[in-house]
Amino acid sequence: MTLVIVNGESVANDSRAKMVQSAANLIGSQGLNATSFSDVLASSGAPRGSIYFHFPGGKRELAKDAIRLTSEQILTHIQASSTRSPSEVLNHFVALFRHVVEASDGAAGCAVAGVTVDIPATDDELLVDAREAFHSWVALLAEQLETAGVDHESARDIATIAVASVEGALILCRAERGSAPLDAVARQLKLLVESRN
Amino acid sequence: MTLVIVNGESVANDSRAKMVQSAANLIGSQGLNATSFSDVLASSGAPRGSIYFHFPGGKRELAKDAIRLTSEQILTHIQASSTRSPSEVLNHFVALFRHVVEASDGAAGCAVAGVTVDIPATDDELLVDAREAFHSWVALLAEQLETAGVDHESARDIATIAVASVEGALILCRAERGSAPLDAVARQLKLLVESRN
Repeated sequence: MTLVIVNGESVANDSRAKMVQSAANLIGSQGLNATSFSDVLASSGAPRGSIYFHFPGGKRELAKDAIRLTSEQILTHIQASSTRSPSEVLNHFVALFRHVVEASDGAAGCAVAGVTVDIPATDDELLVDAREAFHSWVALLAEQLETAGVDHESARDIATIAVASVEGALILCRAERGSAPLDAVARQLKLLVESRN
Repeated sequence: MTLVIVNGESVANDSRAKMVQSAANLIGSQGLNATSFSDVLASSGAPRGSIYFHFPGGKRELAKDAIRLTSEQILTHIQASSTRSPSEVLNHFVALFRHVVEASDGAAGCAVAGVTVDIPATDDELLVDAREAFHSWVALLAEQLETAGVDHESARDIATIAVASVEGALILCRAERGSAPLDAVARQLKLLVESRN
């Protein structure tokens, strides 16, 4: 019985996790408003009934989870860097986005941006989630830059332009259907930190 | 009769122009998909019947015009810079966005990004319009940077990171409800061009 429950939970969690990942991908590539539960079901292969089971809070709950998942994946990637030089810290950060852009011919985007662009400024709760996600990336990147020798204040500024320019480059790459804008951003971020060493 | 027609056209054009400006503002602050004709009518004060008169192509035509208007306004602003140093070229470019962010407590955004994030990658025509808008800003900024003494290849790269980081900063400012991310981007863009002089 326990095994059945465990298996049941495992399957349920797996199905929920797949839906959140599908939602994150879809929100990144077409924004929050165009992303329907039907799209998420079609993309994740989850049965229709599972929406109400897994997301009693509806689309807002799915959006919150898509932000959380994206944020955790980005933090995990940044954390996985074996910090060496400031330039390598930024290069490692950009590499995650380059991979996503190249694998999708530029069509993929960031779910946190896809929510932030699409929600009215009055919708505080999702904005707070997005803000905390951006803050956490900037903070972790800044910490790594400091460990690599950049002074505290500059590290924060550089981490901010890294996150902002990569988010913007994702939009330009989408319009471009290619990675050229992100490549230019990567070259300039490298020059930015190398110029201060 | 001519006068009446001229006046009629003038009023019509004025009403159409107001609708396009409202659409650009709305798409910038809530994305393309959340922006309805009703929102545009409410915001511009145009009568309901004017939609079909002015935009027989529907929302797609309005989106195309919002991209065109935004792009022209940004080009006009860049062009208005009396080019001096590379740092001043970038500072002038960023100033336009700072003004928009500060006036809206971060809520405003860019209509070209609001379209690009929200449309499926298969919707080629609007993506082409967005791409051409981004290209034209990068090209004009690069031209000004070259005039200010930056070499050709670097000028293009720097113009690209300027456009990307400002677009990304608008998203971060929206989540932040303030201008801090854009301020950090401005400081780092300044250092980026000053470090190579």
